[in-house]
Amino acid sequence: MATLWTIPTPALVVDAEKLDRNIAAMSERINGLGVPLRPHVKTCKSVDIARRMVRGQPGGITVSTLKEADYFFDAGFRDVTYAVPLAPGKFEHVTGLIRRGADLKVLITDAQVATALAQHAQGQGVVVPALIEVSSDGSRTGVAPESAALLELGRLLAGTAGTRLLGVLTHGGGAYGCKSTDELRAWAERERAGAVRAAARLREAGLDCAVVSIGSTPTATFATRLDGVTEVRVGVYVFQDLHQAALGVCDLDAIALTVVAEVVDRSAAKRRIYLDAGALALSKDRSTASTREDLGYGLAFRLDAGPADADLVVREVSQEHGHVDGRHAPLDVERYRVGERVRILPNHSCITAAGYDHYHVANAAGDIVGTWPRVNGW
Amino acid sequence: MATLWTIPTPALVVDAEKLDRNIAAMSERINGLGVPLRPHVKTCKSVDIARRMVRGQPGGITVSTLKEADYFFDAGFRDVTYAVPLAPGKFEHVTGLIRRGADLKVLITDAQVATALAQHAQGQGVVVPALIEVSSDGSRTGVAPESAALLELGRLLAGTAGTRLLGVLTHGGGAYGCKSTDELRAWAERERAGAVRAAARLREAGLDCAVVSIGSTPTATFATRLDGVTEVRVGVYVFQDLHQAALGVCDLDAIALTVVAEVVDRSAAKRRIYLDAGALALSKDRSTASTREDLGYGLAFRLDAGPADADLVVREVSQEHGHVDGRHAPLDVERYRVGERVRILPNHSCITAAGYDHYHVANAAGDIVGTWPRVNGW
Repeated sequence: MATLWTIPTPALVVDAEKLDRNIAAMSERINGLGVPLRPHVKTCKSVDIARRMVRGQPGGITVSTLKEADYFFDAGFRDVTYAVPLAPGKFEHVTGLIRRGADLKVLITDAQVATALAQHAQGQGVVVPALIEVSSDGSRTGVAPESAALLELGRLLAGTAGTRLLGVLTHGGGAYGCKSTDELRAWAERERAGAVRAAARLREAGLDCAVVSIGSTPTATFATRLDGVTEVRVGVYVFQDLHQAALGVCDLDAIALTVVAEVVDRSAAKRRIYLDAGALALSKDRSTASTREDLGYGLAFRLDAGPADADLVVREVSQEHGHVDGRHAPLDVERYRVGERVRILPNHSCITAAGYDHYHVANAAGDIVGTWPRVNGW
Repeated sequence: MATLWTIPTPALVVDAEKLDRNIAAMSERINGLGVPLRPHVKTCKSVDIARRMVRGQPGGITVSTLKEADYFFDAGFRDVTYAVPLAPGKFEHVTGLIRRGADLKVLITDAQVATALAQHAQGQGVVVPALIEVSSDGSRTGVAPESAALLELGRLLAGTAGTRLLGVLTHGGGAYGCKSTDELRAWAERERAGAVRAAARLREAGLDCAVVSIGSTPTATFATRLDGVTEVRVGVYVFQDLHQAALGVCDLDAIALTVVAEVVDRSAAKRRIYLDAGALALSKDRSTASTREDLGYGLAFRLDAGPADADLVVREVSQEHGHVDGRHAPLDVERYRVGERVRILPNHSCITAAGYDHYHVANAAGDIVGTWPRVNGW
């Protein structure tokens, strides 16, 4: 049987037990606040993991690309929200999926797009269910809850034959800049309140607003109330990562995704070892750079140790090399033979995982018990 | 016919004429200094492009992963140098390729690895040709030209039945930190001199050293002499990128790789537009951050403009969103409808291209004249 000690490196490894614990904890938390999950599969991009994420939930998912929409629809996920503002170049793909039977919901932020989409959909003989993206914290795309544009979009989407107004959607992405759990709690409430306020304004204008969709892993972890919300979208919680740990969302031990790499060289003079995992195997994400401890391109530990003992930092990367220093003290390179293996906790799971076309699934003993494919690209 | 105006976005596009010009210019330059190229295919990871790179050269290539070695060998490239220090976890893959007929050369930096490799190779009934990696500038892996380790490795590789000492290899990666062309010229000479000195020491010790392999796109562009060198390895020159332009290696107009993206939202208040190309479509590489002008995650221009008019900078990214500001002045968002298309010049071609499984090949008019697959992963 393959193990962490024998699989070809670099390898993307999911700890199945930690994954299941993370999924259960978030489902219980959000369901406990009275709201179902619509998991975001942009992190895992895996049918095997998505099936675990929707257990006990209504079954709908969120995607970030139409390639994900195709892939998950073909695997039996009919109810799919495409949570990036729709642009005209993707109309045909969207109506094609709907004609094939997908219950695909799109995101609209622009009146010209709403009008053009309705025309296109009518030509294709379909009705496209649409959510208005609301910018609850100004961190990304969407219209403000108090804006005139919100009502204009609502009227356009509700009043034209090719589209149907389904509701509002927001993502509290600004939470990633928070520095304390108090701040995260406030940010979560801001996300909830913005979406609920936008929904109320649409309803006051006589428009339907069945869906009030919010979510990010940090805000979902710290939200204390979800009244008025109809669904929560979260993605990275399945794996967690160093950035989530830095935000206080999880412990290091909850991180279910690691990259296994092998030492390929050592420099006693530089007190540094080199791994066969570099910019492509780890990504160039530097999310922890702005947190309490800058963990370079990842925090690592030997296969015979655990996250609590992680004392190696991938300080620099080139395409296929990771340059590793001691975390707290200069490295004793004699402790690491060439061929020694380490596990690297990623800064940002969504981005690191995208470098691989499959996961190795490991149990707590380090046996590889399965392989799960991923869908990448567009 | 598909064009830049109609292909699904985000799309990775190669300008075929610029590509051919970049390949011809580097081949002429290095051949003009009396040395053949062994192109590095880690940037393109494409058989179609690699075939162009080896035109007029001996035909050997350099790879950064054994998956590339498999892929290119299966496509007819027999002479392959795997230019990352070999670790024990890859012995079986290496000897398997050699048994299948590949003339695969490996890189050795460690005496224990050399001994273990020889044993393994003998067990498999093959002889593995090996290069010693020399660290000419201390920027990465390898042994110093003046070190005792160099001769120890040479004797081990030459004196054991399972391995054959082929020569030395170095990569002047430190050149990426240079701030002037004078400095780059000096760095190129340092790379050459380090490799040639290491070769001389091996020969003085009575050992064979047929190969003296050097190379990086910046050092190859500025080298003024290559005496003693037997081959030059370069990769990113085929596409060039913003980092190469910042180093003075190329003009913006030479960059043959762009990402085509569509505007998905606008914010008049923030003077910002949003693209459907984010962290996965562009990578999180920030190579220009330390250069004269920080170009965020890429420099962009409208399809009806050119690189000389590039006035948009992708300032922030989330997974599938690029947040774009004006390069020199706050953006007039009214000039960009949702659905408008832009081309983005990447910071670092090797890393950006790795997010895609194929290239769209465009001519100067913007017609898509072909599709070239890539090999990613490990």
